Amino acid sequence: VELFNASTVHPGILMPIGGAEDRKANRLILRRFVELACGTTAHIVVIPTASNLPDTAALYSQIFRDLGVHDVRVANPTGRQLANDPDFLSIFDGATGIFISGGDQVKLMSVIGGTAMSRTIHRCYRAGGVVAGTSAGASAISEHMIAFGRSGAAPSQRMVQMGTGLGLAPHLVIDQHFSQRDRLGRLTTAILYCPDRVGVGVDEDTALILRGDNTAEVIGAGSVTIIDLSALEYTDVHSTKGHNPINAVGVRTHNLRAGEQFNFNNLELIEVVEAIAV
Amino acid sequence: VELFNASTVHPGILMPIGGAEDRKANRLILRRFVELACGTTAHIVVIPTASNLPDTAALYSQIFRDLGVHDVRVANPTGRQLANDPDFLSIFDGATGIFISGGDQVKLMSVIGGTAMSRTIHRCYRAGGVVAGTSAGASAISEHMIAFGRSGAAPSQRMVQMGTGLGLAPHLVIDQHFSQRDRLGRLTTAILYCPDRVGVGVDEDTALILRGDNTAEVIGAGSVTIIDLSALEYTDVHSTKGHNPINAVGVRTHNLRAGEQFNFNNLELIEVVEAIAV
Repeated sequence: VELFNASTVHPGILMPIGGAEDRKANRLILRRFVELACGTTAHIVVIPTASNLPDTAALYSQIFRDLGVHDVRVANPTGRQLANDPDFLSIFDGATGIFISGGDQVKLMSVIGGTAMSRTIHRCYRAGGVVAGTSAGASAISEHMIAFGRSGAAPSQRMVQMGTGLGLAPHLVIDQHFSQRDRLGRLTTAILYCPDRVGVGVDEDTALILRGDNTAEVIGAGSVTIIDLSALEYTDVHSTKGHNPINAVGVRTHNLRAGEQFNFNNLELIEVVEAIAV
Repeated sequence: VELFNASTVHPGILMPIGGAEDRKANRLILRRFVELACGTTAHIVVIPTASNLPDTAALYSQIFRDLGVHDVRVANPTGRQLANDPDFLSIFDGATGIFISGGDQVKLMSVIGGTAMSRTIHRCYRAGGVVAGTSAGASAISEHMIAFGRSGAAPSQRMVQMGTGLGLAPHLVIDQHFSQRDRLGRLTTAILYCPDRVGVGVDEDTALILRGDNTAEVIGAGSVTIIDLSALEYTDVHSTKGHNPINAVGVRTHNLRAGEQFNFNNLELIEVVEAIAV
């Protein structure tokens, strides 16, 4: 359980997106996803299962076709039986990119958690595929997954409900719509209950590109906030009652904007694009 | 993430105990722990960090000495710095058995989660050691760990709060004091949020002996209840509001008493000691 020091570097890429990514103008994030998935020769599978909207699959399929991809497929299992059906899962044959939509991450995991479809996604990723998830889809990249919670800047008891996600990035707890929905408190609370994990809060129209060697780059309009408990000195998370605020001393946060490169192996910046050491 | 099909069978043993194990009469469970840890030649480390009582370490140390073990040590780090200190961790050198006390699993994990001490426990276990945990200590054997929750037989929303445990049994979510504190609802709720895991509810004075090949045996006075979602047909866990009851159709439970052998690889009984097929 050396969560940060995976001995197996592989060519797969993860892209948690904070939701509300630009879909009409420059489409920087979706364009980058397509590029990383081999551009016009990409084989992309859209998973709209988290969404309750009828047109989610069509929306993203059209965008990826507009960006030049010929082979765009949809995998939307209606239940766990289909998510375990080898014939159904042939949709993923040769996939170079998998895009998981927004919606409700608990709905998504209720259908695909622990199924052959989940294992197929892992195999595509490990083989060098790109797995992007926006909003609920970003959360589901985590292993210890935020299901839902309350807004607010400071951690407090019972602020966040957890489930399990796909576990593609088992060492990270990923949150989304991060600044826009005031989620620092809930992510900090989640991490205080999981001191072996690192928190990653992704703003809207922002993404983290996480490579198989555990290094990452920020792209898009907003920030990625990293919550790091490696220097935690004190917390009363275990004894705080009711919905009261939780003490936590020594929480480190890192706010990174587009262009910054971060190394999750040692929790340090790789290269400072433009800043001063203070 | 083939949680049930670990390719690496190893000689380690886990013993989640449901709390309130007999400490004065026959001491069947604690005696079995000592036997599995090499009997009188065992090197046992007691971890009392979950407990707020001052005499927990002394209590268990005396019991293990009474059972004939000469080498009983205590590892009770006062903070995360000590839990990362190689000199302190030499307590674990040559350990054949590790015993994690009851108390509060969140307190325990706040101190040792993600530290070198956690990795040391993993190494002892993988090398063939026995790791037993009672009450809070049993919960901490899980990876996706129940932190606290409400009582009740049926699953309901916001019934259970989750954190991360040691992850020695990453495929199981372990609960304790199970029948005595009416915890079927909270364990079912936890598992509905983690459909890739199996729930294990351990009664008081009862233990599961889980071998490195993922087979297990029940010992002690009560039952072990296994909650298995492999045949789940329907749930509305994602859309249930407030603290309302959650629908779940097709939850399988298995109630096993002392002597029963269960295979967690295929979620089947290995041998029926005394029962009728119905």
